[in-house]
Amino acid sequence: MPDGGRKVLGNVEKKKIENWQEEEPYLYWMTCVEGIGSRTIEKLIGYAGSPRKAYDLKLPDMLEVIPKSRAEALIRAKKEGDIFEKYHILKQKGIRFISIYHPCYPQRLKNIPDAPYGIYVEGRLPEESSPSIAVIGARQCSDYGRFVAQRCGRELALAGINVISGMAKGIDGISQWSALKAGGKTYAVLGCGTDICYPSENWNIYRKAKENGGVISEYPPGTAPAARLFPRRNRIISGLADVVLIIEAREKSGTLITADMALEQGKEVYVIPGRVTDSLSQGCNQMIKQGAGIFTTLDELLEETGLGDMLLHRESEPERVLEDKAEAENGMCGIEGASGEEGIGPARNLKKGNGGGSMTGEEKEIGQTQIDKKILGILDFYPKDVDKMMQETGIGYRDLVCALSRLCLEEKAVRVGAGQFKKGEFLG
Amino acid sequence: MPDGGRKVLGNVEKKKIENWQEEEPYLYWMTCVEGIGSRTIEKLIGYAGSPRKAYDLKLPDMLEVIPKSRAEALIRAKKEGDIFEKYHILKQKGIRFISIYHPCYPQRLKNIPDAPYGIYVEGRLPEESSPSIAVIGARQCSDYGRFVAQRCGRELALAGINVISGMAKGIDGISQWSALKAGGKTYAVLGCGTDICYPSENWNIYRKAKENGGVISEYPPGTAPAARLFPRRNRIISGLADVVLIIEAREKSGTLITADMALEQGKEVYVIPGRVTDSLSQGCNQMIKQGAGIFTTLDELLEETGLGDMLLHRESEPERVLEDKAEAENGMCGIEGASGEEGIGPARNLKKGNGGGSMTGEEKEIGQTQIDKKILGILDFYPKDVDKMMQETGIGYRDLVCALSRLCLEEKAVRVGAGQFKKGEFLG
Repeated sequence: MPDGGRKVLGNVEKKKIENWQEEEPYLYWMTCVEGIGSRTIEKLIGYAGSPRKAYDLKLPDMLEVIPKSRAEALIRAKKEGDIFEKYHILKQKGIRFISIYHPCYPQRLKNIPDAPYGIYVEGRLPEESSPSIAVIGARQCSDYGRFVAQRCGRELALAGINVISGMAKGIDGISQWSALKAGGKTYAVLGCGTDICYPSENWNIYRKAKENGGVISEYPPGTAPAARLFPRRNRIISGLADVVLIIEAREKSGTLITADMALEQGKEVYVIPGRVTDSLSQGCNQMIKQGAGIFTTLDELLEETGLGDMLLHRESEPERVLEDKAEAENGMCGIEGASGEEGIGPARNLKKGNGGGSMTGEEKEIGQTQIDKKILGILDFYPKDVDKMMQETGIGYRDLVCALSRLCLEEKAVRVGAGQFKKGEFLG
Repeated sequence: MPDGGRKVLGNVEKKKIENWQEEEPYLYWMTCVEGIGSRTIEKLIGYAGSPRKAYDLKLPDMLEVIPKSRAEALIRAKKEGDIFEKYHILKQKGIRFISIYHPCYPQRLKNIPDAPYGIYVEGRLPEESSPSIAVIGARQCSDYGRFVAQRCGRELALAGINVISGMAKGIDGISQWSALKAGGKTYAVLGCGTDICYPSENWNIYRKAKENGGVISEYPPGTAPAARLFPRRNRIISGLADVVLIIEAREKSGTLITADMALEQGKEVYVIPGRVTDSLSQGCNQMIKQGAGIFTTLDELLEETGLGDMLLHRESEPERVLEDKAEAENGMCGIEGASGEEGIGPARNLKKGNGGGSMTGEEKEIGQTQIDKKILGILDFYPKDVDKMMQETGIGYRDLVCALSRLCLEEKAVRVGAGQFKKGEFLG
């Protein structure tokens, strides 16, 4: 049996089982034990036939398929208390364990190679029928990266697209916070238990995402953040998304590894281009050379990826399928849209071709003049003086100063000294 | 005859004729007359059979194929003086008229649709066996564009590649001047006569290019610069090049029209990517979306386009074919390398994989430390303070200041105030 048994549950087979409600607590027991990952679980279930049967295995049987240290750890965990009680306490804490057998387990994640057997969720899971875009990038980002991350987070939120990321410093956190501020939904996938806020400085995102989105992890509550956990965490970020958008990445960086992983998962990868002189844009430019999509406007991305159609379709059929499924299964799985609340928010009003303003072309839409457009094009993240701006735009002093004053009122420009201006914080 | 005659000389047929030496002065006569362009010349030669026979046509014959005003202008020009004398004076002034029948007419140019029947040259024509890259872009460029244009001009020159451009303000002139400063060759294609320096501020390029390269125009000496002449001039810039490299272009700009023209000519188009927030990079990023190559390092470009092989091949066979041809024809055509001077300069020492340093990766080659690399990656065109740099690089104060001091000595960084640094002018 061993050899044949090991291979019974592959990437497809492991996703189906009879009586999933009864099996789930036993799977929970396995994921809780430190050192027990997807492969060990796969071997045990493959050998025993189901999580429940794996729980009943004695040490000698376990040793047929897994190393001694892991088998002993599993046996020890059985003795440390009743798993059903623990499973119950988990729910009381507001943390849900969603196994791969659960009908609400995210379909996108189920389709990746090496999908986790179970995930822990605080808040909700991304709606199946809403587009989800993972926004990732450098921790130590530049002013440019910060600006674009803010803008993307906001634009995606306003378009009704879920923003998935890792809540890390830099690009991840900035885009997620920006999405939340715009009234959108974001899902933070952690490299620690969902009961730990890491990094602690992103407490606001951690707290708000539970209300407007979710906090998700493959690791059981109490798991401390560790460098070794992050690469595997990243496969879930891309796994939950339809498209991965990269804003700033160095030439050899974790972000690029995640991008490769996303491509292996069959996800589309889009990249924000940057200057060839900026090391933080080198990774992005390199990916474009290798065939990644180039992000210029959200409208274009939605059209190219087909996500625009998904948005329109969702508008007409709001979550019925999922609600029915959730009700039928009586699974308190906390999938967004299954709970009966308003849910998809701003996206309900989305009109195609209007929802995602372009990064640089939206000026037309709000009726700005050619002069404003020229000025906005050359305002930078550092102060420029009026002389330089006259030279760069070819606009005369009078017109320039007049337009700048207006742009300052609209928070699109900021006066930072005598005759010195820089890009404003307004992201509209 | 008329209808059939008109079609006799197409893009291929017009390039060959018997006794080209005798025919050339008559072609010169035609190109000298204002308002007479390629199409009129084609019609006349097609009708008459050769430039010489076209010269002998009477007004009524000319009216069979061209409008009255043009026919009258041609007749008038015949009466204004002896064309052989004028042709001779032209040579004395150091201006050569190279007709499409001349063996030294650039092969690359001959292959484009609508190749000019003749071009005027001061200095030389680009060597056939050396790679030529056209570098074009915005007139009102940014500091980023300026930096990249300087760097590209220099790198191309050091690799032994001819830099072709329009000597315009901004990107064109900067890259050409940078190529000349590095000891390379540049060819300026003008939208006026070669005897007129336009724009006048680029006098240095105009003067030096005649010594180390050439000044080329389709328009006869004395033709004043005019907006309507520039678009047609641009087809010669791309026509003389193997590859067109675009550094900064707005979304709807003349540069992009030139790029389209280059693609129609079968040239490869490469683009420098930029920030999505910079209006001067919008055109470039858009072109990348549409399939243009993305320029990151010269080595990569040389490999992808096959120009690297051309450089290596040229090294072993220095211009023999051309010299023979030029001698045989006794054509004082001023093709680079035909005159017996050293000619191809720095390129003779070119080693593959070494000649073109990368835009951002050359640090490895000159043995710089990881710290230097990080700092160079975040130095910008505006002053940054040490605190900000510590934050962006994660490098400690002591190491950062130490490295900055060294980089300042190497002119890779510039100290611009107390604890404030920006990118240096060193382009190595």
